[in-house]
Amino acid sequence: MSSQRSAEGSRCRVAVVGASGYTGAELLRLILRHPHLELTGIYGHRSAGKPIETVLPSLAGVLDMSVQSFDAQHIRQHSEVVFCALPHGASAARVAELYDDKLCILDLSADFRLPAELYAQWYAEHPCPELIAHAVYGLVELSRERLATAKLIAVPGCYPTASILALAPLLQAGCLKSTGRIIIDAKSGVSGAGRELSLATQFGEIAEGMHAYKVGGVHRHIGEIEHALNQLSEQAVHISFTPHLVPMVRGMLVNAYVELDEGGQEPTELARAMYRDSPCVHVLEPGSCPDTRAVRAANRALLSYAQDPRTGICLAQAAIDNLTKGASGQAIQCLNLRLGLDEMCGLDSAPLWP
Amino acid sequence: MSSQRSAEGSRCRVAVVGASGYTGAELLRLILRHPHLELTGIYGHRSAGKPIETVLPSLAGVLDMSVQSFDAQHIRQHSEVVFCALPHGASAARVAELYDDKLCILDLSADFRLPAELYAQWYAEHPCPELIAHAVYGLVELSRERLATAKLIAVPGCYPTASILALAPLLQAGCLKSTGRIIIDAKSGVSGAGRELSLATQFGEIAEGMHAYKVGGVHRHIGEIEHALNQLSEQAVHISFTPHLVPMVRGMLVNAYVELDEGGQEPTELARAMYRDSPCVHVLEPGSCPDTRAVRAANRALLSYAQDPRTGICLAQAAIDNLTKGASGQAIQCLNLRLGLDEMCGLDSAPLWP
Amino acid sequence: MSSQRSAEGSRCRVAVVGASGYTGAELLRLILRHPHLELTGIYGHRSAGKPIETVLPSLAGVLDMSVQSFDAQHIRQHSEVVFCALPHGASAARVAELYDDKLCILDLSADFRLPAELYAQWYAEHPCPELIAHAVYGLVELSRERLATAKLIAVPGCYPTASILALAPLLQAGCLKSTGRIIIDAKSGVSGAGRELSLATQFGEIAEGMHAYKVGGVHRHIGEIEHALNQLSEQAVHISFTPHLVPMVRGMLVNAYVELDEGGQEPTELARAMYRDSPCVHVLEPGSCPDTRAVRAANRALLSYAQDPRTGICLAQAAIDNLTKGASGQAIQCLNLRLGLDEMCGLDSAPLWP
Amino acid sequence: MSSQRSAEGSRCRVAVVGASGYTGAELLRLILRHPHLELTGIYGHRSAGKPIETVLPSLAGVLDMSVQSFDAQHIRQHSEVVFCALPHGASAARVAELYDDKLCILDLSADFRLPAELYAQWYAEHPCPELIAHAVYGLVELSRERLATAKLIAVPGCYPTASILALAPLLQAGCLKSTGRIIIDAKSGVSGAGRELSLATQFGEIAEGMHAYKVGGVHRHIGEIEHALNQLSEQAVHISFTPHLVPMVRGMLVNAYVELDEGGQEPTELARAMYRDSPCVHVLEPGSCPDTRAVRAANRALLSYAQDPRTGICLAQAAIDNLTKGASGQAIQCLNLRLGLDEMCGLDSAPLWP
Repeated sequence: MSSQRSAEGSRCRVAVVGASGYTGAELLRLILRHPHLELTGIYGHRSAGKPIETVLPSLAGVLDMSVQSFDAQHIRQHSEVVFCALPHGASAARVAELYDDKLCILDLSADFRLPAELYAQWYAEHPCPELIAHAVYGLVELSRERLATAKLIAVPGCYPTASILALAPLLQAGCLKSTGRIIIDAKSGVSGAGRELSLATQFGEIAEGMHAYKVGGVHRHIGEIEHALNQLSEQAVHISFTPHLVPMVRGMLVNAYVELDEGGQEPTELARAMYRDSPCVHVLEPGSCPDTRAVRAANRALLSYAQDPRTGICLAQAAIDNLTKGASGQAIQCLNLRLGLDEMCGLDSAPLWP
Repeated sequence: MSSQRSAEGSRCRVAVVGASGYTGAELLRLILRHPHLELTGIYGHRSAGKPIETVLPSLAGVLDMSVQSFDAQHIRQHSEVVFCALPHGASAARVAELYDDKLCILDLSADFRLPAELYAQWYAEHPCPELIAHAVYGLVELSRERLATAKLIAVPGCYPTASILALAPLLQAGCLKSTGRIIIDAKSGVSGAGRELSLATQFGEIAEGMHAYKVGGVHRHIGEIEHALNQLSEQAVHISFTPHLVPMVRGMLVNAYVELDEGGQEPTELARAMYRDSPCVHVLEPGSCPDTRAVRAANRALLSYAQDPRTGICLAQAAIDNLTKGASGQAIQCLNLRLGLDEMCGLDSAPLWP
Repeated sequence: MSSQRSAEGSRCRVAVVGASGYTGAELLRLILRHPHLELTGIYGHRSAGKPIETVLPSLAGVLDMSVQSFDAQHIRQHSEVVFCALPHGASAARVAELYDDKLCILDLSADFRLPAELYAQWYAEHPCPELIAHAVYGLVELSRERLATAKLIAVPGCYPTASILALAPLLQAGCLKSTGRIIIDAKSGVSGAGRELSLATQFGEIAEGMHAYKVGGVHRHIGEIEHALNQLSEQAVHISFTPHLVPMVRGMLVNAYVELDEGGQEPTELARAMYRDSPCVHVLEPGSCPDTRAVRAANRALLSYAQDPRTGICLAQAAIDNLTKGASGQAIQCLNLRLGLDEMCGLDSAPLWP
Repeated sequence: MSSQRSAEGSRCRVAVVGASGYTGAELLRLILRHPHLELTGIYGHRSAGKPIETVLPSLAGVLDMSVQSFDAQHIRQHSEVVFCALPHGASAARVAELYDDKLCILDLSADFRLPAELYAQWYAEHPCPELIAHAVYGLVELSRERLATAKLIAVPGCYPTASILALAPLLQAGCLKSTGRIIIDAKSGVSGAGRELSLATQFGEIAEGMHAYKVGGVHRHIGEIEHALNQLSEQAVHISFTPHLVPMVRGMLVNAYVELDEGGQEPTELARAMYRDSPCVHVLEPGSCPDTRAVRAANRALLSYAQDPRTGICLAQAAIDNLTKGASGQAIQCLNLRLGLDEMCGLDSAPLWP
């Protein structure tokens, strides 16, 4: 695979493994409209043999392709790039089968986002720890240079993407108070819980209400967020993280509450400086409130910072679409950098309104 | 008005001022099913002269009554109790007209919840500060005795009700760390924004998304929450408060993040002890997650406490229906105590599911 | 079981079989607030042994009872009345076990709504056809007298309830044109699809969209609707029926399009005359549009009739809550008649708004 | 304006009049991603002078442009094409000001969809009837040739688009029974009601419920549907039309019930033949149920036909996104034809799922 690809050149051939989940569906949507990508195959387990439109009704009349059984050899023959949109655990095994000199692999699971010891702590013993060293963490705004030559890209989770984008400017500037403690109250649309059958996400159980889940410091994204933030900061940070499901299909809003040293630079200015050359991040005026609707179906992040003068608490907020910038859009953005394309190539649609 | 009323006796005659808003609508629903209340009149401004079913389609065939123009004299003649469900500012003026020796007034606005100086700080100069001293703050679980003889009851706001119920056990026990700082991240259903026309609450603008509002320590309920909590606690507390609108009609979830002294009693035990005789408060197991759906359309509060051992942060959660325990249901509960009835009389329906 | 029960007398002991579905949940909610019913047991299969609050979070702190394995003998010992809220097929077998001289059985499935030959046509061979003759079809407004002495009550389905209520006045008056053809376009909230796990009713698959299902004359409720209507009318009717799922939890709107003979009485007048003594049916002004929200969580039906002068088509509409008047509320209403109580006893709450 | 434009050539300069409504918002989204269009100005009344991101939060960081006061001269100087996304009545006046030899005008209102006498019947006296003759009705699949040279394009309404697409194959084939009567039961997402402030479309009033509106043959789209259908058919058709609002933001499902002559061709085959070269129309298998979610945010229509053998009724269904194929997407599709581009240029995104 060449690392530079001219706009006029041939399309890069890409495959998707894991077609029946929501990140797989979003990958297909984004690949189909990308001017420099050509979809060569969809691979899945439960839906193998089925026309894709029976799995995703939105593709009826749009994409005439059937899901195939996973076959690493077949993928290598027909594709230069493969996206793995599988659950953690299942993904590592497939990546190990696929990994070779030629294929570029973008993994959307958690399997290559953490060092082996942290993976063991938050998930399980890692099945192929030797591959972890090859993986580049694909939070684009922090990793552009490394992505340009990556062979294996670990696409970040949705909660980590929003949390890290909001907090990175403050940590890089070293302006957190010494406790290093950050309280994150995060809200996700229901698609964040995946497409697996579950009573908890049946419409009759989750519409018209909201609730937290996995409280008390046990959500696995805590490890990923802390690990990424600790690489940005000299002081160790500790995250108190509470996720919620909100009755909307897409969207994620992360509120991070931090204490800042007095006399430092304005958070909004720090963020604007850090993201000056990041086309998908937009920093609102201080005290604004990013709305998840304002990024729906788009590979964008809206940030804002509000200082509470009564308590000294700074609220850092980030709104993303959990399936786009929080997963599949960011995967495409990583691939664009890897291919030498503009990082927003195929991702420049404005969000839906309404 | 007699302060004791037997189950067999005549019904207490009640009027509602402010029929076209959501707390007014919920009051009517609850009054109509209350075995000891008789609705004698509905008073309003914009809807005066209209049959109530043109204002509230749910009452077609249920209640054959028209809205009347406000008339304090008329209310005094026909009613023993009056609920004022008007916006703050407007309410104080009506209460001043209505206040006399005989009428029991339950005001659902913010106008009598704060001392005059705090009211001036968060709202405006109070138009009738002399009445404030007569008002009892109607957070039932903290004020039962005073409610039994109250002439003017200031029914608490929805955010304060949920916040105070969750935090009171911790503050009463004195187990907050000395900073006294509490971070509250609160989520409300859209009905919490009222029934006034607003672009921000049009379906096309608010469905399928969520956002915070009034960030940075400016929401007026902060004054009410801090005032109530400071009366429970020897140490001064400071609230960092962030409200959100969530795309559901009813429901409120309040997350309060606090640091507790080590070695203290379990928060769940403290709460169970405090609310042992409070029939509408239920404390879930530690680490449970109260769902706003589990209290929908009911005068109930679900509390839970989760300790994060990694950070030392305790998450106190409360779920209520913002229109029931957060407004009109609590108003009826106050009145029940005032009338010497069981406090859950007419309020004992189980929540809707689904 | 005595057929008359005074308001002061002992409560009637009732059991619910099938606790984990939505009609079971709604039955529990309604039984708990009924002044003359006492819940003696909840029986289920998958949830046997579990506290009911783990099955229905809304009952946490409300009902301290566990689900028991089905045991006909146990039910007979402890209850006078049993509600069966099981799927069709499963229900008939349980009813056959329960049926005896003393127990009053209310079956919410389709198993006793049709004569055996029609049941075989639309469902399957009936397992206990001899019991069908004992069953009274519980569409209250058409069957009050027979319900007063019924031993086995077949509570109607939601689509039939709404369809029959809207059409009965026209058919009784014999004013349909001779073709006898009726087009019914019906819309149900998602709870109408039950609580079983299904990809089609996962939030991510059904929120923000709508679709028909079982088109082409195959929905099983067609048999029930035609059977009931043909008993009201001298002319044979044929129903073209199209059901839809709409992204709301509760609610059902049925539109029936009919051609009426010219010169007949106004449909609105016919309906008002027919339902004069039916407290839960309300007929709106001609040309009004009943809203499912205006009956939410209430045992009510709103009807309206609109004549289109351009085409001669009359639109008859009915709005109900599919779980209340469309299932569990109507079951309680049937039982009230059976017990000699006011038919709306325990069912007289106004609908929720908002 | 040249009628052929090469892919490499300069972009066509387009303006949008009416920026604060939903069709205007959707136009902006689609124009911004169109490879051959360049947005030169946004004109509005109430929002004149404001940055577009204050009107449409989704454009924060996406489009740095302010709304200007309407100025026909200014538009002519800077644009070759103008979209009018104004309410009916208001639009005709602007079009009259804009109309000249050079500008291509696409009007999304109803003002140029009907002959003057029909317009007078359904709307009001037409203010500039002389312009009507210049207008081409932009239902692309019926008007491709005329669109190639149109100067004024009347973009169809959402209900007419869905209704006509579903019915045209049957009418063209002349297979309707002689009564010519068609019953249309149509369901729209709430965005179809526009962005104007209205109590009826406040979230608290319309979420979790559904209702019909304008029953009895009075909805203005009846005139447009009948007029278009009567041009396709030798026999006169009469539409009984009932619209509904459904609690989803986008989406429209139209059910048309017709009686067909026996022995005719299968409707599915007729439709597939008619739309063989129509890239945005897809005809599902007989008896399938098109889901509005499967076309969300895309310029697509899904059709299906189901014959009910019991009653002889044929159900023709169409699902579209009311704002895309039902308004702004179709406008772009018209313009593509006018510019000699592929008709799906800039419109080829797959629908969102989920």
